[in-house]
Amino acid sequence: MLVVMRPDASAADIDYVVRRAGSLGLKAHLTRQHDQTVIGLMGDVRGLPVDALAGLHGVDRVQPVTHPFRLASRDARPGPTVVAVRDRMVGGEAIAVIAGPCSVETRERLLDVAVRLKAAGATMLRGGAYKPRTSPYSFQGIGESGLELLVEARDLTGLPIVTEVIAPEHVPLVCRHTDVLQIGQRNMQNFALLNAVGESGMPVLLKRGMMSTIEELLLSAEYVLAHGNEQVMLCERGIRTFETYTRNTLDINAVPLLKQLTHLPIIVDPSHATGKAGLVRAVSRAAVAAGADGLIVEVHPDPDHAWSDGFQSITPEEFGGLLDDVRRVAAAVGRRA
Amino acid sequence: MLVVMRPDASAADIDYVVRRAGSLGLKAHLTRQHDQTVIGLMGDVRGLPVDALAGLHGVDRVQPVTHPFRLASRDARPGPTVVAVRDRMVGGEAIAVIAGPCSVETRERLLDVAVRLKAAGATMLRGGAYKPRTSPYSFQGIGESGLELLVEARDLTGLPIVTEVIAPEHVPLVCRHTDVLQIGQRNMQNFALLNAVGESGMPVLLKRGMMSTIEELLLSAEYVLAHGNEQVMLCERGIRTFETYTRNTLDINAVPLLKQLTHLPIIVDPSHATGKAGLVRAVSRAAVAAGADGLIVEVHPDPDHAWSDGFQSITPEEFGGLLDDVRRVAAAVGRRA
Amino acid sequence: MLVVMRPDASAADIDYVVRRAGSLGLKAHLTRQHDQTVIGLMGDVRGLPVDALAGLHGVDRVQPVTHPFRLASRDARPGPTVVAVRDRMVGGEAIAVIAGPCSVETRERLLDVAVRLKAAGATMLRGGAYKPRTSPYSFQGIGESGLELLVEARDLTGLPIVTEVIAPEHVPLVCRHTDVLQIGQRNMQNFALLNAVGESGMPVLLKRGMMSTIEELLLSAEYVLAHGNEQVMLCERGIRTFETYTRNTLDINAVPLLKQLTHLPIIVDPSHATGKAGLVRAVSRAAVAAGADGLIVEVHPDPDHAWSDGFQSITPEEFGGLLDDVRRVAAAVGRRA
Amino acid sequence: MLVVMRPDASAADIDYVVRRAGSLGLKAHLTRQHDQTVIGLMGDVRGLPVDALAGLHGVDRVQPVTHPFRLASRDARPGPTVVAVRDRMVGGEAIAVIAGPCSVETRERLLDVAVRLKAAGATMLRGGAYKPRTSPYSFQGIGESGLELLVEARDLTGLPIVTEVIAPEHVPLVCRHTDVLQIGQRNMQNFALLNAVGESGMPVLLKRGMMSTIEELLLSAEYVLAHGNEQVMLCERGIRTFETYTRNTLDINAVPLLKQLTHLPIIVDPSHATGKAGLVRAVSRAAVAAGADGLIVEVHPDPDHAWSDGFQSITPEEFGGLLDDVRRVAAAVGRRA
Repeated sequence: MLVVMRPDASAADIDYVVRRAGSLGLKAHLTRQHDQTVIGLMGDVRGLPVDALAGLHGVDRVQPVTHPFRLASRDARPGPTVVAVRDRMVGGEAIAVIAGPCSVETRERLLDVAVRLKAAGATMLRGGAYKPRTSPYSFQGIGESGLELLVEARDLTGLPIVTEVIAPEHVPLVCRHTDVLQIGQRNMQNFALLNAVGESGMPVLLKRGMMSTIEELLLSAEYVLAHGNEQVMLCERGIRTFETYTRNTLDINAVPLLKQLTHLPIIVDPSHATGKAGLVRAVSRAAVAAGADGLIVEVHPDPDHAWSDGFQSITPEEFGGLLDDVRRVAAAVGRRA
Repeated sequence: MLVVMRPDASAADIDYVVRRAGSLGLKAHLTRQHDQTVIGLMGDVRGLPVDALAGLHGVDRVQPVTHPFRLASRDARPGPTVVAVRDRMVGGEAIAVIAGPCSVETRERLLDVAVRLKAAGATMLRGGAYKPRTSPYSFQGIGESGLELLVEARDLTGLPIVTEVIAPEHVPLVCRHTDVLQIGQRNMQNFALLNAVGESGMPVLLKRGMMSTIEELLLSAEYVLAHGNEQVMLCERGIRTFETYTRNTLDINAVPLLKQLTHLPIIVDPSHATGKAGLVRAVSRAAVAAGADGLIVEVHPDPDHAWSDGFQSITPEEFGGLLDDVRRVAAAVGRRA
Repeated sequence: MLVVMRPDASAADIDYVVRRAGSLGLKAHLTRQHDQTVIGLMGDVRGLPVDALAGLHGVDRVQPVTHPFRLASRDARPGPTVVAVRDRMVGGEAIAVIAGPCSVETRERLLDVAVRLKAAGATMLRGGAYKPRTSPYSFQGIGESGLELLVEARDLTGLPIVTEVIAPEHVPLVCRHTDVLQIGQRNMQNFALLNAVGESGMPVLLKRGMMSTIEELLLSAEYVLAHGNEQVMLCERGIRTFETYTRNTLDINAVPLLKQLTHLPIIVDPSHATGKAGLVRAVSRAAVAAGADGLIVEVHPDPDHAWSDGFQSITPEEFGGLLDDVRRVAAAVGRRA
Repeated sequence: MLVVMRPDASAADIDYVVRRAGSLGLKAHLTRQHDQTVIGLMGDVRGLPVDALAGLHGVDRVQPVTHPFRLASRDARPGPTVVAVRDRMVGGEAIAVIAGPCSVETRERLLDVAVRLKAAGATMLRGGAYKPRTSPYSFQGIGESGLELLVEARDLTGLPIVTEVIAPEHVPLVCRHTDVLQIGQRNMQNFALLNAVGESGMPVLLKRGMMSTIEELLLSAEYVLAHGNEQVMLCERGIRTFETYTRNTLDINAVPLLKQLTHLPIIVDPSHATGKAGLVRAVSRAAVAAGADGLIVEVHPDPDHAWSDGFQSITPEEFGGLLDDVRRVAAAVGRRA
């Protein structure tokens, strides 16, 4: 951590910062840059109320030197983490392709799409039973009965299940049914929920908030990892920008960058990242080409009649075409799907 | 709701949309614009799975016509809502100035600052007992003992208490101590929490998410209002933009805009909105000049040693100066503080 | 164009809008939605001072129905535009890979890198002679002598030249040397410059502004096209967002979206879009997988000593590896490089 | 300037950076932080191709220590710059209120509004003769005849003129007519134009780009100042964010922050910053309360029939009310209007 003093800082100001750092257990080294003094602090600065240094008299700003995440860092584990979801491995050579409807609707529709996804070659089945929605007047999911339908679909197809959990008190119930706990983008910084899924020991799919930085995503993963739960998959699903033609802007840079920063697998959600069914296939190819370890795609047998997100859902037939594309691109980058 | 068809939409496409709308209980009226057909839909479109219309063949896009919030709307209540917090009224002629430390730290410090804030003329006391923090390694608040210290400070000064609640299961406990439940920006779309505070019937201070739109803020308020809890204060606390000189960008436009859209009172948080103690006073003046009904300001007796957010906290002395400014500006716009 | 009236608009307000539209040569059709009247306007609304309708009494807002760009639209030309740069075709089956240093520095370095890029398989040579720089204290390019060095490099290697033009009065000079006129991101809305390159008839590489929407990019292309110059390549080079780990955020969604909206070829700049040499290769693969017609990559024989943008430049050896990747991904999507 | 090395940097890497810095005329001091070496560089780093250091082997990143702007800095001139526009002073005790139509339209309208603005108490008259427009199909201004009408309005009222210049070759012509050269937001980084207005010696109103940082604004001012032209007024006119209810988001934080960073006067444009006539008055009060030295407001005698930006223009009557508000708030903060 570096404390950059203002050009007009007095010797007393500098001395005070050094003594204050000392009282926090940190050793200080001074350097003079141009007309400013920079104080380097050594020791474990994490967890200390060091924000305060930024407010000391004569201080211009405080600059961190090391990444604030530890367990998620490549430094903590040089090789990749492979998350095991039943017999499917995420983060190895194979690209995981998770697919299914936004919401679980009826039994017929879910089983129908599950069978078709299995036939097309999907790796896992997704579907929402509990839906966080911006408006209280929107459809909020069918709840526990949706979890039971997902289990029935798994029994029928063998596809492991991914479903969202939206409150800490739901975690035990959802764990009894699902194979992967999904944390939605609005809950990326719901720390009570992160702690609960951390304690569960279940595989977690952690979606990046639409307003969250890559560093914040890794710090949220850190909450889960700090409970000893290493089964974490990160999901880039598009960020909010000024562009309004698309629902979100897929941060494709984040894919190779996360592969450098962390050992955790990276999944891309092309459906939310674009908000347009007509862009999903091209963006899926891009994600795999950039190094993603998997995709999570909204597929609905009849998008026109979907109860949510129909505009960004593709059909099972289109999903077959997407998988063909993904297989070709995966082969071109030394992976398989 | 308007359904704009693509220029190449066929008569069958248009017919299908009209029949589909009919099956949803909506009446359709067609207009032809330039080379496109626009279908106006009448009936109550709220709560229906109308997303699906956006995915129908030949549809270019769907445009809402009315605001999606109802209870928060000026249409629902032409006059202003005045929230009563014990004997303090928020949303009337008087500007409410809520002040206090980011976190409750020790008993001595809290009582010290509470007494000084009372003397300076603050309206309520704020202080965090439970702190949502980006990193699991940061200070997370002192918990329930912090609530008890806040009560002691209220008993001593008469200042009503504002404190944050971060999980639905905490709501009953926090309600037993506080006068206002604060929902932090990361929890603006934690719908389980919104439902819980809605049911509590307690006054709520709802902070806008740092990347949430004004419409999303009003829809989150709608979750609380839909439980019959009308004691909601909205809080603009800065949004995330590309500018990095300041921690956030105060959306000052939101203040008069919210006054037009909703009957709920608007509070501004100049501390988080700037992230720099040196800007808090000027921005507080601006907020009051723009029509805000109150301020929530971080004040710490010794910002250099604060356990969190010291860099944006002002001292009780500086707070006195801020209040002087606010009183002058309030008088200039026909209010008082 | 739709004029949405406020719920409280009077019959006189509506009548006034209809008459005002009539005076602008537009025909009006009324629809009543829920409790609001919507007025559809027919006729050629482009070029008229129709902003004014938004300010009429009782008007809530005005919504355009058709895209504001015409010549750049797929409607104007269903098939793709193929831009011919000497004997290289951009927008056809082959992926164009433009490479070279950010700035032209010395003769030795430029000829050295040009020869190595030619050997690796680059399609064209890029290099800046005039450099727009945020700070007046930064290196601003070597000017006209840089243009002459580029010509020498083309004579030596046969690679066509791409170089930036930064002011209308430079256009004739730069045209005498270069094969493609590049418009930098800061100049995307420098309309005097767009008019000048439009009149030149030369192939143009138009970079999207870091703050510009896709629609604004297409409208800037429209300025060039309106002069009868159809030789326009669009370039996505990253947009400015809240994320600071990377210099910009590549808007990968824009690639397939632009392919749907326009017939013009799309080039991606992975160097500026990431600002990190270590991400350029992965992002280049993603761009080609998403459907880009070309890449423009900063390559420098010795990035450590580059006079600008060294941190995002790759070496000629790394460029060889990038081209290998690009060839494999191109083949996987039915293209070649 | 600080060079932060990666944890795995070798001694040879560090040694190379030190020698490379030496060859650039910089002295290096080493500090070891936690497990990373930080190299402080002393000497004049401005104008050197130091970007290259960021690309050296083992370097994690380079952090600047001092602000990159010099002449615009408070360090360069501790007191405020007061810009003299004929007999009006901007940057002193009085708030400058510049008002007028977006575009100069007809002689009658311009003279009419000028007389009414003079009567209401405006300080200067604004009006665009050359209009940069996103679409080539939009009204582009009436050109030179507009300049002549502005002169006539000045002769009639005594109000100094502010008008935009959009190309370097127009500068001499516009200088012959106007009192202040306005640089629009799209041209904030049109460096050829900045150089031209710098050489002109005329007062300049420099608008911040809608996605430009405060630092970039100050660096653009630096281009003008570096020509010896110190008559520069900065203008905050709203930035582009994710919020779409308003046309832009006024960065009110920028007002007190710029007052701290620079000696140049700060003007706020509430019309573009909101894009809604109904918000202009409240936001004008906020700007003055925050410490702005002036306002620039779009006023049109008949906004419904304005040829551009009618939706954000207020009437002369509303302008009178705005000025009343501004005078009261100015008095509350020790200024006058």
